[in-house]
Amino acid sequence: MEKIPTEESLKAQKSILDRLNRIEGQIRGIKSMIEKGTYCDDVINQIEASRSALGAVELILMESHLKNCITDQLKAGNDEEIESLFKMVKKLMR
Amino acid sequence: MEKIPTEESLKAQKSILDRLNRIEGQIRGIKSMIEKGTYCDDVINQIEASRSALGAVELILMESHLKNCITDQLKAGNDEEIESLFKMVKKLMR
Amino acid sequence: MEKIPTEESLKAQKSILDRLNRIEGQIRGIKSMIEKGTYCDDVINQIEASRSALGAVELILMESHLKNCITDQLKAGNDEEIESLFKMVKKLMR
Amino acid sequence: MEKIPTEESLKAQKSILDRLNRIEGQIRGIKSMIEKGTYCDDVINQIEASRSALGAVELILMESHLKNCITDQLKAGNDEEIESLFKMVKKLMR
Repeated sequence: MEKIPTEESLKAQKSILDRLNRIEGQIRGIKSMIEKGTYCDDVINQIEASRSALGAVELILMESHLKNCITDQLKAGNDEEIESLFKMVKKLMR
Repeated sequence: MEKIPTEESLKAQKSILDRLNRIEGQIRGIKSMIEKGTYCDDVINQIEASRSALGAVELILMESHLKNCITDQLKAGNDEEIESLFKMVKKLMR
Repeated sequence: MEKIPTEESLKAQKSILDRLNRIEGQIRGIKSMIEKGTYCDDVINQIEASRSALGAVELILMESHLKNCITDQLKAGNDEEIESLFKMVKKLMR
Repeated sequence: MEKIPTEESLKAQKSILDRLNRIEGQIRGIKSMIEKGTYCDDVINQIEASRSALGAVELILMESHLKNCITDQLKAGNDEEIESLFKMVKKLMR
């Protein structure tokens, strides 16, 4: 069953897409820095900024994943969902 | 209601305490390195090893937290538990 | 003074650009997952994969930064370079 | 040649030892939580706090390592020191 998107969920989706567009722009910026042979200090800082920005998107999705998907699945008795959550958290803790 | 510990849970507890004892020993070792003025490269590597060892304990507890506490709480309708899980994951992702 | 690129350095540059192109493709893939409303588990795993891939590029650049830029700058007496390296390492350790 | 410790370096050493003593106390606290069967949420948060505290000590040592050891070694022509720094940074970035 597909859920009908609410106005709020559409706004959240738009905000995530905006962030991802900015990150895509950052990656392109890093490519052109590498092509021009920019001093590595700046490139590393720029990569670190993109990783942070991706981390922020991940956090938004994680909040929604926990509060919606995981909660619903566990209540529906799909306990194996917690195993996939644990694998995900394990990767984050690496 | 207190749960009667199973043989398995006592073994798990013992294994975690063994790990924590080793970590406590590592911290004492780091203190004596600092007191002796040991070359910083070795001290940093030793601290990094203790942090990894703590991370391994954290992962064991996290697995049990997710598979027992979180699953039980959500099924009992305590949805606010997911908020505290999100805060925890947020810290790990920092 | 601009350094004349060696064959080896051109190969390294090409390999980094290839990696960044793949990452750019991954980001576009994540955007289309979000647009389609893909189940959040998969999206989070995909973001985590992109962050790892960026981390791998960062490591390649870091190695070159340390072995070339930092070494040269310190030998030339530019000790302030170590301050900017410390700031960078601090961000990585967050 | 052993360096004669300055008043400043003794103060720094004392501050690091104080931090390590607090961390050792935290580890003992975690052990007694585990022995008492404390709710895992609190234990995980406490472990995370100890890891952060160790990270803070690591950062202090890293600053001194970069500004003293690494700078001196590179100036003395011991270029292989940068290889061990890279290995250390690699571990931190994991």
